[in-house]
Amino acid sequence: MTHPTIDQHDAWQALAAHAREMRTTHLSELFRGAPGRHAAFTRRAAGLTLDLSKQRWRDETLDRLLDLAREAEVPEAIRALLAGERVNRSEDRPALHTALRLPPEASLVVEGEDLVPSVHATLERMATMVERFHAGQWRGATGRAIRDVVNLGVGGSDLGPLMVTHALADYQPEGVHTIDVHFASTMDGSQLADYLARLNPETTLFVLSSKSFTTIDTLSNARTARDWLMARLMGENREEGVDAELVMRQHFIGVSASPEKMNEWGIAEEHQLEFWEWVGGRYSLWGGIGLPIALVVGMAHFRELLAGAHAMDRHFSGAPLSDNLPVLLALAGIWNVNFLDIRAHSILPYDGRLEFFAAYLEQLEMESNGKSVTHDGREVGYSTCPVLWGQLGPNAQHAFYQLLHQGTQAVECDFIAPKVRYDDVEEPGTRDHLMGQHRLTLANCFAQSRVLMLGDEAIEDDGPRPVHKRYRGNQPSSTLLLDRLTPATLGALIALYEHKVFVQATIWDINPFDQWGVELGKKIAGETQRILEHQADIAGMDASTRGLIEAVWAAERGSR
Amino acid sequence: MTHPTIDQHDAWQALAAHAREMRTTHLSELFRGAPGRHAAFTRRAAGLTLDLSKQRWRDETLDRLLDLAREAEVPEAIRALLAGERVNRSEDRPALHTALRLPPEASLVVEGEDLVPSVHATLERMATMVERFHAGQWRGATGRAIRDVVNLGVGGSDLGPLMVTHALADYQPEGVHTIDVHFASTMDGSQLADYLARLNPETTLFVLSSKSFTTIDTLSNARTARDWLMARLMGENREEGVDAELVMRQHFIGVSASPEKMNEWGIAEEHQLEFWEWVGGRYSLWGGIGLPIALVVGMAHFRELLAGAHAMDRHFSGAPLSDNLPVLLALAGIWNVNFLDIRAHSILPYDGRLEFFAAYLEQLEMESNGKSVTHDGREVGYSTCPVLWGQLGPNAQHAFYQLLHQGTQAVECDFIAPKVRYDDVEEPGTRDHLMGQHRLTLANCFAQSRVLMLGDEAIEDDGPRPVHKRYRGNQPSSTLLLDRLTPATLGALIALYEHKVFVQATIWDINPFDQWGVELGKKIAGETQRILEHQADIAGMDASTRGLIEAVWAAERGSR
Repeated sequence: MTHPTIDQHDAWQALAAHAREMRTTHLSELFRGAPGRHAAFTRRAAGLTLDLSKQRWRDETLDRLLDLAREAEVPEAIRALLAGERVNRSEDRPALHTALRLPPEASLVVEGEDLVPSVHATLERMATMVERFHAGQWRGATGRAIRDVVNLGVGGSDLGPLMVTHALADYQPEGVHTIDVHFASTMDGSQLADYLARLNPETTLFVLSSKSFTTIDTLSNARTARDWLMARLMGENREEGVDAELVMRQHFIGVSASPEKMNEWGIAEEHQLEFWEWVGGRYSLWGGIGLPIALVVGMAHFRELLAGAHAMDRHFSGAPLSDNLPVLLALAGIWNVNFLDIRAHSILPYDGRLEFFAAYLEQLEMESNGKSVTHDGREVGYSTCPVLWGQLGPNAQHAFYQLLHQGTQAVECDFIAPKVRYDDVEEPGTRDHLMGQHRLTLANCFAQSRVLMLGDEAIEDDGPRPVHKRYRGNQPSSTLLLDRLTPATLGALIALYEHKVFVQATIWDINPFDQWGVELGKKIAGETQRILEHQADIAGMDASTRGLIEAVWAAERGSR
Repeated sequence: MTHPTIDQHDAWQALAAHAREMRTTHLSELFRGAPGRHAAFTRRAAGLTLDLSKQRWRDETLDRLLDLAREAEVPEAIRALLAGERVNRSEDRPALHTALRLPPEASLVVEGEDLVPSVHATLERMATMVERFHAGQWRGATGRAIRDVVNLGVGGSDLGPLMVTHALADYQPEGVHTIDVHFASTMDGSQLADYLARLNPETTLFVLSSKSFTTIDTLSNARTARDWLMARLMGENREEGVDAELVMRQHFIGVSASPEKMNEWGIAEEHQLEFWEWVGGRYSLWGGIGLPIALVVGMAHFRELLAGAHAMDRHFSGAPLSDNLPVLLALAGIWNVNFLDIRAHSILPYDGRLEFFAAYLEQLEMESNGKSVTHDGREVGYSTCPVLWGQLGPNAQHAFYQLLHQGTQAVECDFIAPKVRYDDVEEPGTRDHLMGQHRLTLANCFAQSRVLMLGDEAIEDDGPRPVHKRYRGNQPSSTLLLDRLTPATLGALIALYEHKVFVQATIWDINPFDQWGVELGKKIAGETQRILEHQADIAGMDASTRGLIEAVWAAERGSR
């Protein structure tokens, strides 16, 4: 006998009935005569303030959603996740990104082994490397200090480090040999070619990041980088003593869960950072994959990032469900996608430093919860992850907010901003100017979420407006304020979304830690490539694929 | 008596009935035993090949959609658009971006005036400016040649030039004084601050791009830039003869529809590029707003971009509906969003040079068609623009394709790639290597669209797979091949989507050329800002806005 699916539970049924009542309630009605609504739906933890009052819900809704979370055994799932149980069931292993941010004095025994010492051993290894770069002591094959590092990785080996280094660019340590960090991810070599045209091979090092160390996108770029280094450093004018082994040793670092594959590729053993099978790619910026972050902000700030995430982990573990930020954010999402049929979710940071945060979350959420099979192998009969996209809020105001205000699609929005910025600028005139610019940005953030909620009611009219200037409102949103944007609050912010994703997966009864749709992609291109290269027969292909390949062949013949 | 809305038309009703039949038809069934399907649904124009065979439709579907287009008077609308009639009804003016790419020998008389001479006069003005830069003769206040240009603009004044300069970076003219072009758009000053830290004020010029010249994001950044120039060039050590007037003249170009506002701000008259009220911001890269493009690729390539767009305009104007690329692409979108209830649309270029194409289309489509009121002021009873988002395809494979393959959301995808690339690389070894990398990219493109269509059927099994490794397929897509990526094909590609948007707007009976939701945003932040700055009373605000503002105040007090 199988257990009932979550949509057969009483709490789900009650929510469905409740949603039918609520569907006709406009957000503006919920605020009318409710001066305490902000306080009632706002919670704080780890330097973050989450205002959920602009969700289309009442106290009763939240109570029922909390019932649903309990019926779905969210508290038990949280415990199992943090304890290192094998929550990634399709791959039969734990998902232990939280272990990567445990403090050194902690202990986490998983299947007989305390993980904390080995986690901190890796951090020490990273610290030694970073120190060597920052002392100007990591030298290329010709003896000059490395000053440009290019990260070669894609997906989880790209988006996390890219997002965080950009967000924390103000946190570069002083008095060290500066390292400029760059990111090349695209399979077609476009980005890497740009860098190679500009960089000096003598002072450039490549970090090869790939959990499996088989990702073809990354290995293609790595081969190009190796050829470039060899041609430039070992050409006719090469200096004495520069050989291939030296180039490989001094210009490559590998980060992977597979030391064998790193050895095969020729990464020197002492320049390998290993991580664990139990860390998912999109959850991996907290360890070796975060090396580019540490190269920019230094290890002290990197450890603050970990500490901020750990603070959120403790909150997630200890706070009651009704005060638990990841749980509440997850429930808001469930309410929107499953009961109000809102299938799109926009991420809108109001701080230029968070430029890549939306792209980061697109992977984190859609790769984790873009699933439709329950843990015991049944097709779900309800929506899981919505489509997530976003951009810097002020820029998006000039781009797609039009659709949010006057389109026909219902969209949930997350507004994200730091409360204070620029107050540490030395020169008083510049400080006032910049703080004014930050307040302008906040004013836009608050005003937009207000109009999305209230619609026409937010606007003072000096006369009747034509219908094409009317705004429906009723678009739900969350607002997330960071006390300020620091390594610690950024760590907490990322962990908040990681745990939100886990809570939703628990309720939907899906596995957020596998990615068979991505694994698939890695395999299926091979056959098509062999056909394109005239090494396999096209006959088995469908008409469209045949037509496309033939069009390419014709163009190649024409270009000769 | 009002005319019937489009969903009351026979063609719409017939499509709705047809959709009920088609909903249970899997895409793979449509391909089975249909070797001619690719040819039947593929069309070519202006260097582009559009394969629509992977849409979930049959011949009959397309016939009915073409009926709908005729009932919606699409042919008449195309004629009216290109003839310069006042198709932007809420603002009572024509929408004449197509006039910007007419060749010099053409003539277009709109309301008594031939526009072509003044369009080409502006292009000549641009050409003179570009030539001066490329000859190293545009000198800063201290006499040194300008070599960095920072574009200050947001929305349409940012995304178009940014996208195109990136896409055509290979097309820099040889033998000219190189200009590096940068883009700063964010209101909070983040991006601009990065540039100011790196650039030399003596050799840096700012282009202020704003149709209204009132956009606060851009003007905030412009003020910061002006202060920076004045402080650096006119400080204590200033050279003789450098005064504020000279700095303003030599370091700023303005692009706007308002010469008065440019004068007020202090842009020298001879350094103003004016454009017309009848060019919408998101359709404006074809004229003065395109100056950064011309600075990168030179005027000859810029004119090829215009010629490519014009080739698509001619096709749009002259081709029968059933062979008309913009019309067919529009109808595929209508079929998906209105009849199959597919509310999300992903843009997936397989060429790193198109990195910003998805962001560009997000604005073009969602700002144009994120509307819900018909031309005669009725609320629509059907979906209009879907949520549009995207990323480079190979990168998205490692990020959100998981949701496309195994999630619960139906999504339409546009795959975009050039057939040939790198065949002009001189060195044979490098050429073979790079062409191989391009074929690998194409193989991924074709393989992904194939699996999204077929699901499990695309995979050869060596045994039964567990259910979490199964793929539903049935996600519809279009594939758009460019003969190669050149200024001309890029022009045609952009024009294709511009016209697609127009055709959809015509069928939905909405105005794609206004943007009251964005205009609104520009206004409403003012009141909130005055409150944040303690210059207005908070009492009229809702509980959430009050709570958020008070949280900011408390943090500001705490930080002192």
